[in-house]
Amino acid sequence: MNLGGIGEFGFIERIKRRARLDSSVVKGIGDDCAAIKFNKDNYLLFTCDMIVQDVDFTCRTDPYLIGRKALAVCISDIAACAGSPKYALVALGLPKNTQLEFADKIIEGIKALAKKYHINIVGGDISRAPKVVIDVSLLGAVRKNHLVLRSGAKKGDIIFVSGSLGGSIKGKHLEFAPRIKEAKFLVRNFKVNSMIDISDGLAADLGHILQESKVGAVIYQRLIPVSKASRNFDEALYAGEDFELLFTLSRPQGLRLMSKRIPIFRPIGEIVDKIYGLRLIDRNCKEKKLQPRGYKHF
Amino acid sequence: MNLGGIGEFGFIERIKRRARLDSSVVKGIGDDCAAIKFNKDNYLLFTCDMIVQDVDFTCRTDPYLIGRKALAVCISDIAACAGSPKYALVALGLPKNTQLEFADKIIEGIKALAKKYHINIVGGDISRAPKVVIDVSLLGAVRKNHLVLRSGAKKGDIIFVSGSLGGSIKGKHLEFAPRIKEAKFLVRNFKVNSMIDISDGLAADLGHILQESKVGAVIYQRLIPVSKASRNFDEALYAGEDFELLFTLSRPQGLRLMSKRIPIFRPIGEIVDKIYGLRLIDRNCKEKKLQPRGYKHF
Repeated sequence: MNLGGIGEFGFIERIKRRARLDSSVVKGIGDDCAAIKFNKDNYLLFTCDMIVQDVDFTCRTDPYLIGRKALAVCISDIAACAGSPKYALVALGLPKNTQLEFADKIIEGIKALAKKYHINIVGGDISRAPKVVIDVSLLGAVRKNHLVLRSGAKKGDIIFVSGSLGGSIKGKHLEFAPRIKEAKFLVRNFKVNSMIDISDGLAADLGHILQESKVGAVIYQRLIPVSKASRNFDEALYAGEDFELLFTLSRPQGLRLMSKRIPIFRPIGEIVDKIYGLRLIDRNCKEKKLQPRGYKHF
Repeated sequence: MNLGGIGEFGFIERIKRRARLDSSVVKGIGDDCAAIKFNKDNYLLFTCDMIVQDVDFTCRTDPYLIGRKALAVCISDIAACAGSPKYALVALGLPKNTQLEFADKIIEGIKALAKKYHINIVGGDISRAPKVVIDVSLLGAVRKNHLVLRSGAKKGDIIFVSGSLGGSIKGKHLEFAPRIKEAKFLVRNFKVNSMIDISDGLAADLGHILQESKVGAVIYQRLIPVSKASRNFDEALYAGEDFELLFTLSRPQGLRLMSKRIPIFRPIGEIVDKIYGLRLIDRNCKEKKLQPRGYKHF
């Protein structure tokens, strides 16, 4: 059997089952970041993302934006756990004939975003590789009482997204601003029960929350903010790389957030019993089951 | 100009020059690990290594040993800073048609070594890639007074290596045991002035110590322990991937280490003024200048 037979997430489940963890690990494999005991008030957050030519960008993508994206996707993982990014390592695989200017631009893109988010680039590795591949590892911190995981959604929670979804391929996947500020606003002012960043797509990433929290969800087509760049509603559900926050608040907390009328935070549905799985109420008020499918690597 | 024009280390120098670091970073780009302020007694150590098919292993290498190597090279970086490895992330790029058994074996190799060194695998990333590529990020800790960098070598220091050098390509590069225990023994019992692990080759890695410490060195062919697997002395100087410790102690400390007659620690030369560069005294007592060259990625 090849990897396509069980898929990326099937394979991650296999790795997770056999992982040995000591008591200093608050959260291991299976969330946006690992959370590790650090000091009295804070956890360390630890995450990495690998981006690869012809999967996440092409040979015609501006190398500055390739570098920018490599770090941005990692920052977005820290945002999903409501933390602050601090230290990054950059592992860079480049073809033998890579032009110095191209490599410099990748680094410039990483550096510029690092500066904006007050991140220290403290090391890395450089290797020859058949195609461009960048893996950024990011270390951050979060106040213990601010850490939000995928696993905390509860029946009755209201589901929210930040920003609009779909059509990211037209540019947003390279130029999005990771939602660090927005996540911090949320955890400072509300009790956020669960959160994830939308990388695989709304349906797939809501699926991750449902699986980890052992709950179901109903979402409403009329409520889901579709990006102008999106060609159709399916892109908002499945295309991914929106890097928006998807999160749930208890009903009272959710109503309080809505009362503030902050345009980027929109309610899109609610958490229900696990037995319902993931359902969409479409524009004609018809209910249908959604598969939590997203981008398939294998 | 392409990357070959300035080389891997020239490019790293360019990255380093433009890196912004805050006061929490004790050591950034340019050592085996980054060192970051952590708590009263300890620093965090943070490192990553990317290994790539057809550079670090081939499609015929046992996948268990590929996984093992991916983690081992990272542990060796922590050893070079005299720390303890704690938490790892594994970013894995695999071709579309990868067999599940092959992927499982990579993970098994990583897990088995992680268990042996008490490392928690806390997360990672999986992506499609044209060839197999693995980047492991490792977080560790070191007592503040035990941290050893490349930059502390002093004129008059005795230079030592652990184990023997050369011929690693015949198997050791896949099956070596990272020298965590040996490094700890050293820092607990001696004042180690500088240390590095030999990945690029004795000449290149001693060159890194000389550059960071702004000193020169004389080494003696008769004293350099050449592995049985090595075809000739040049392999011991230049072939690399020995993953042995290369370190320097002041003369009194070095004499004390020698008096203990521990077979794996061998003196190979001494640190001299920067003006001498790197010199070898050969078996005929002739002196020659060595170029600190090693494996070239570009």
